[in-house]
Amino acid sequence: MSEKVVRFGILGCANIARKISRAITLAPNSTLYAIGSRSIEKALAFASENGFPPSAKVYGSYEAVLDDPDVDAVYVPLPTSLHLRWIVLAAEKKKHVLLEKPAALNVAELDAILEACDSNGVQFMDATMWMHHPRTVRMRELLSDKQRFGQLKSPDLDALGALGDVGWYCIGAILWAADYELPKTALALRQPEFNEAGVILSCASSLYWEDGKIATFYCSFLTNLTMDLTLLGTLGNLYLHDFVVPFQESVASFYASSQFSLPAPSEHAVMAELPQEAVMVGEFAGLVGSIEGDDGSEPEKKWPLLTRKTQLVLDAVQRSIERGFEPIDVVR
Amino acid sequence: MSEKVVRFGILGCANIARKISRAITLAPNSTLYAIGSRSIEKALAFASENGFPPSAKVYGSYEAVLDDPDVDAVYVPLPTSLHLRWIVLAAEKKKHVLLEKPAALNVAELDAILEACDSNGVQFMDATMWMHHPRTVRMRELLSDKQRFGQLKSPDLDALGALGDVGWYCIGAILWAADYELPKTALALRQPEFNEAGVILSCASSLYWEDGKIATFYCSFLTNLTMDLTLLGTLGNLYLHDFVVPFQESVASFYASSQFSLPAPSEHAVMAELPQEAVMVGEFAGLVGSIEGDDGSEPEKKWPLLTRKTQLVLDAVQRSIERGFEPIDVVR
Repeated sequence: MSEKVVRFGILGCANIARKISRAITLAPNSTLYAIGSRSIEKALAFASENGFPPSAKVYGSYEAVLDDPDVDAVYVPLPTSLHLRWIVLAAEKKKHVLLEKPAALNVAELDAILEACDSNGVQFMDATMWMHHPRTVRMRELLSDKQRFGQLKSPDLDALGALGDVGWYCIGAILWAADYELPKTALALRQPEFNEAGVILSCASSLYWEDGKIATFYCSFLTNLTMDLTLLGTLGNLYLHDFVVPFQESVASFYASSQFSLPAPSEHAVMAELPQEAVMVGEFAGLVGSIEGDDGSEPEKKWPLLTRKTQLVLDAVQRSIERGFEPIDVVR
Repeated sequence: MSEKVVRFGILGCANIARKISRAITLAPNSTLYAIGSRSIEKALAFASENGFPPSAKVYGSYEAVLDDPDVDAVYVPLPTSLHLRWIVLAAEKKKHVLLEKPAALNVAELDAILEACDSNGVQFMDATMWMHHPRTVRMRELLSDKQRFGQLKSPDLDALGALGDVGWYCIGAILWAADYELPKTALALRQPEFNEAGVILSCASSLYWEDGKIATFYCSFLTNLTMDLTLLGTLGNLYLHDFVVPFQESVASFYASSQFSLPAPSEHAVMAELPQEAVMVGEFAGLVGSIEGDDGSEPEKKWPLLTRKTQLVLDAVQRSIERGFEPIDVVR
């Protein structure tokens, strides 16, 4: 039996949707099937510019995409404030959901989104692409090697963008490094920068775990593009400079040093057959195929769980900033 | 007129003194002249193992080195708690002083040391070797280039060792990056680790400047050797992984990215004719030569000033830890 090809509908014509459209085309088990925008002209232009097949459906509303019975899954790059409304509706229409980050304005909204997906039996995944790159698997192997890396002491991260935007990436990568063990406390650093409307332009935070591990991250719209991750272990270190989007599509490197090797970090290059966003789409479509197929699998719980943990930490950091840099417990 | 050759006396046989002995031999304007230890046997062994010439004086006490009128300058790798006593005495004996880090237990002790050097007209320099590597000059050129780096937003540093030891390096490098503008506040991060005797094994801190710049550093005896420096500017970034001691003696690299270049950091390799510690000894001996020579120069004020700024920040971080992670003003 050949693998099911998942038919994607896209809600909105955000710039990032161009990248994911290409990924849907590249992934072997998914296809571009529908696009909806509040402007039919925009939707038509988007479809013609992004490789939609002539048979694709072009709609002048988001509802129409959700009402199309042949749409298996939606990719949603809408502004975060619209996620609650549209994802709950999509789930009720039994559409599987690939959702852009940040997933929600806070964990209460996210819980409503996840509950809607869960009770309707649809797969949820947030579109954190780097997690799907084969490099990420290789780095996990190194981190898990007690002989080469030892125990993680300090993840340390700087990324483009401010807290609600790509602070999401920073927190996600730190949680990944900590094997998704939640920190017990978040304590924002002082001197975040805001624009006139009160939007965070730069901020930083520290995170604390029960076992003494600490992490810091710094995210800013005001610095040069930065996507650094530094992990310090008792026996080894790991570095990368492009964890969000690799500098090259076909190969991505990380750098590691260990007391058992040369002191200078050595480069580890990992080949990638597909861009990481296409791997992500392929994994999502594979899950959808299993749910929709004859074996009737349940949705994979791992992905919504990781999203929720990221949101919990993000909420705690935001609260720490709002409360004048008090330590805030990360609630489970 | 040929340059004066400065005759060095060394107080004590600490391991680090082997490296500096070699540096004194390599620097063209300095020579190993005397070694003193409380154990004459240790001093004899040290002299024979570290290239002291047959004419060198070997003494069974520190006093004897200071009493030798032919000793121009002393290199002092004694434990920090002994610095006050021996440097004040050395200065009174008109010996120029090259002092291992950390310079003093606190800024009050350091001020007594610096006052003794100043009032006796002798040169003071702490033995922070990396500042003298030609790479450091090249990095400053990049940092000062407003077109390529923009404005510094965040220095971020991880180094081997705990606060009083190589926390000194972290603070020194951050101050270097900030062009020695002192931060206004230090706020230690939580969860420092102590041994049973209360000695800091790992700690971290944030530093805040008036202009919104922030820095973090993490120093630990419990992680793999790490000597990373990451500088984020509004337009460019700079990285190095071996700022304390370059991985190689003959060439040292830093990595830089800028919005005007490729996104991946590019390597900048800087050749070094001499190891950085020999450059340091050469610079120190050159200053001593000018002071002792016919032109009668005054001691160079820059070096004690940089040492004092480092100590001021270190004291504030330590106080922040002692006071339960309160923000502490960095007093001038």
